[in-house]
Amino acid sequence: MLFRQGSVSVGVFQLVSGRLRLMRSTPGGADVPMHTVRPGELFAEASLFSSHYHCDAVALDNCEARLYPKAAVLRHFADRPEALWAFTQELAHRLQNVRTRLEIKQIRSATERVLQYLRLMSDSKGVWQRPGPLKHLAEDIGLTHEALYRALAKLEREGWIHRSGAEIRLCPP
Amino acid sequence: MLFRQGSVSVGVFQLVSGRLRLMRSTPGGADVPMHTVRPGELFAEASLFSSHYHCDAVALDNCEARLYPKAAVLRHFADRPEALWAFTQELAHRLQNVRTRLEIKQIRSATERVLQYLRLMSDSKGVWQRPGPLKHLAEDIGLTHEALYRALAKLEREGWIHRSGAEIRLCPP
Repeated sequence: MLFRQGSVSVGVFQLVSGRLRLMRSTPGGADVPMHTVRPGELFAEASLFSSHYHCDAVALDNCEARLYPKAAVLRHFADRPEALWAFTQELAHRLQNVRTRLEIKQIRSATERVLQYLRLMSDSKGVWQRPGPLKHLAEDIGLTHEALYRALAKLEREGWIHRSGAEIRLCPP
Repeated sequence: MLFRQGSVSVGVFQLVSGRLRLMRSTPGGADVPMHTVRPGELFAEASLFSSHYHCDAVALDNCEARLYPKAAVLRHFADRPEALWAFTQELAHRLQNVRTRLEIKQIRSATERVLQYLRLMSDSKGVWQRPGPLKHLAEDIGLTHEALYRALAKLEREGWIHRSGAEIRLCPP
């Protein structure tokens, strides 16, 4: 347990390694998962705005996390407005990404879902660099590993994509 | 069409009435929906950080939207750091909400999904005030209207919730 719902917030964390889950205990006594944090991700940003944590942070396996103490972060933002601006930009960017994942999940066909995800996430040249293991992509778009592998194989067979290593390239129409 | 992908960004919008969809045109010529905007919602916040829009904004029916011109917003944030701070807080809050909706969608049982959503979104007294029509809740948690109605009826029958008007109260265990 990294922190508990209701305890005094000490700052923002970044997960370095491992997997960690944010959970909320409800009045009825149930523990409801809110979000699974992955390496590299910032979490508990809300603690900057609040004196207490709004959820539990529970390590799912051995985790390493970096703490950015609240007072230091607030001072840094106060002294350097451009740092606050960069943080705001990062939040706006992540909001966009999560919304896109929600929208993608409305698509019923696995093949179509994977293709649309790649279209949205690829760069201007139509290239998508896999940032982590393929199972993260499966989780992000709500498919089993097997369904994802089948969809990728089908897309490549039908000439929609070309795969090499951690790179997927959308083929021109 | 309110704005087009690639056109020069003029500012941030808030939808007053109607429904509007953010879409991205892909190199392959497909239009991929990214997000459906509802009344009250801010959109195109990314335009504050970028000279061009990254997507199309297409009205789905008659819409009214309020424009916050970019230069005015940036000046306001520069003059009043507390306004930028409030904006950052709003983004952090929305990110949390969208993540929670993604997590909720992993739950297969419709009844359980509705109950967990209410647990996460209700206030400290276990009360959830419906902010809009019930069909928005259905969309948010990925259920058909019918499945949502059935789940709510079942939860009430089994004594988990109590409904009156736009308010749903979680019953103590």
